[in-house]
Amino acid sequence: NKKLKVFTLNSNQTLAQEVADHIGCELGKCTVKTFSDGEVQINIEESVRGCDVFIVQSTSNPVNDNLMELLIMVDALMRASARKINVVMPYYGYARQDRKARPREPITAKLVANLLETAGAHRVIAIDLHASQIQGFFDIPIDHLVAEPLLSEYFMGEGLKGEDLVIVSPDHGGVTRARKMADRMKAPIAIIDKRRPKPNVAEVMNIVGEVKGKTAILIDDIIDTAGTITIAADALIESGAKAVYACCTHPVLSGPAIERINKSQIKELVITNSIELPEEKKSEKITQLSIAELLSNAIIRVFEDKSVSKLFD
Amino acid sequence: NKKLKVFTLNSNQTLAQEVADHIGCELGKCTVKTFSDGEVQINIEESVRGCDVFIVQSTSNPVNDNLMELLIMVDALMRASARKINVVMPYYGYARQDRKARPREPITAKLVANLLETAGAHRVIAIDLHASQIQGFFDIPIDHLVAEPLLSEYFMGEGLKGEDLVIVSPDHGGVTRARKMADRMKAPIAIIDKRRPKPNVAEVMNIVGEVKGKTAILIDDIIDTAGTITIAADALIESGAKAVYACCTHPVLSGPAIERINKSQIKELVITNSIELPEEKKSEKITQLSIAELLSNAIIRVFEDKSVSKLFD
Ligand SMILES: Nc1ncnc2c1ncn2[C@@H]1O[C@H](COP(=O)(O)O)[C@@H](O)[C@H]1O
Ligand SMILES: Nc1ncnc2c1ncn2[C@@H]1O[C@H](COP(=O)(O)O)[C@@H](O)[C@H]1O
Repeated sequence: NKKLKVFTLNSNQTLAQEVADHIGCELGKCTVKTFSDGEVQINIEESVRGCDVFIVQSTSNPVNDNLMELLIMVDALMRASARKINVVMPYYGYARQDRKARPREPITAKLVANLLETAGAHRVIAIDLHASQIQGFFDIPIDHLVAEPLLSEYFMGEGLKGEDLVIVSPDHGGVTRARKMADRMKAPIAIIDKRRPKPNVAEVMNIVGEVKGKTAILIDDIIDTAGTITIAADALIESGAKAVYACCTHPVLSGPAIERINKSQIKELVITNSIELPEEKKSEKITQLSIAELLSNAIIRVFEDKSVSKLFD
Repeated sequence: NKKLKVFTLNSNQTLAQEVADHIGCELGKCTVKTFSDGEVQINIEESVRGCDVFIVQSTSNPVNDNLMELLIMVDALMRASARKINVVMPYYGYARQDRKARPREPITAKLVANLLETAGAHRVIAIDLHASQIQGFFDIPIDHLVAEPLLSEYFMGEGLKGEDLVIVSPDHGGVTRARKMADRMKAPIAIIDKRRPKPNVAEVMNIVGEVKGKTAILIDDIIDTAGTITIAADALIESGAKAVYACCTHPVLSGPAIERINKSQIKELVITNSIELPEEKKSEKITQLSIAELLSNAIIRVFEDKSVSKLFD
């Protein structure tokens, strides 16, 4: 007679509701407000004593507010005697600060992991962490889901069947992800190979792999200002690609991103709802797929003490 | 050959500069910016290896941003091999969430203490914590300064000499603070005694102590929306007080605070710069005293391994 409860905070309420619907439960009752001075006020309005609780919250923009909401919620659940506190983070903010690239830099992705543990989290469920190594930042179990199968299936079901495809990584860091998609879609890969021949000389954009006459699908984990992905699309078209599609897991889409995408040579951008898209960021070019089923399957398996990685077999 | 360095983040730059001037050092070089997606980016631009570092940062509004800046800075300093990381928090945000007033509430003031320790802070310097018990939330040394002597001295130096004074606490929680000021100023105390005779019946405002014909000085730790303090001023005037002054350490002054103070019967409100007052909150009625000297004395004593409480003898 373990009991599962799903709570949502402010970042991803629509997704959390979908997750609860998939699982077949109601969202837990709690109010998350701010006091007049901006401090977060959380009230959990039903008993969680002895329950296995799953909190759905992305630390997307406003990242510090969303993170503090999450930490305060974990603290409140711990003090309310929840049995297990599982943190479901569809988007893990600060993931790109995952190493000291220069002297005296923080490693904020590690700090966030420590903060979550300190608050009292027992387990984390995340999707497409910017670097897989972030798993090792935690001393508690972490389930690392991937959205690539969801994205691949969408393209395989699309009008792209029979097309001569090539899966493209927009940088060196994403080649493994492109390789996985290419395997699933039985297509070759290509890599955008940026390099600066000498300091203070403009970057050279080189494409490793054959794209001429092919339909290219760019895949990345995060699209933020969309600079990388739109320049990559230009390079692909210049090298003779027939059409360019793009996809990513996490639509950060900050600053000039939407304008750049709308103006770009990208035919369609496929994203997930790991970050909720505000109305003003919606665009005809953008298709949003839901990770609700993926998350709810993972939540049920965690609740039933079963392996989550089996989901991807 | 220990070396002292003072750094500031975004909340209190003017105060931090004053502190550095008092100590006779330059502020440490670091840039604190945000990426396009709102994530905090900190770069420490000088060596801190082996140094005793003091970070001046209040977790005032925007509290979550200021707190994350502070935590990330502590992380960066720790990784940059600072010898001691001292966190100087003129205002400690979330201090009012210091107990479970209702079931299933967080105790965010304790969470914040844990977060600071987790990030790597070695010592905290704070002023007028909302409850002295918050000292016990830390497993590292904390120096707890008080601003009451500064406020008392101001009033003693003012045109109030020779006046028949009474020091008033606006609620039961603040009586100890009022008692201290009254001792220093050789004046009696009074207490505003709010109570609700029955549920759903309006509060009764009763004054314990003699205020008739006297000049009243209200003292509180935090003035937030200024509801309590302006109502207290009304009650004092109604009970025959000749004039009402008010003072507090932490000018949170959110929402309707400034309007309420300007319209109130308070002749002058004396505050400190534990929280920087934005231009739009300045008012002819408000006098701001600097805690820079108090902080720099405390910093020097900590640096020299001397007792900070001796400052108040
Ligand atoms: N929120 C952010 N927005 C933009 N750049 C970032 C952000 N966080 C970290 N970075 C930078 O991105 C780089 C890491 O990205 P990557 O090389 O793709 O792992 C580092 O140089 C970071 O300084
Ligand atoms: N930032 C805040 N603004 C207004 N009220 C708060 C805030 N934080 C906590 N509280 C409430 O203030 C009360 C504690 O204040 P006090 O009784 O003066 O210690 C508790 O009931 C809290 O729920």
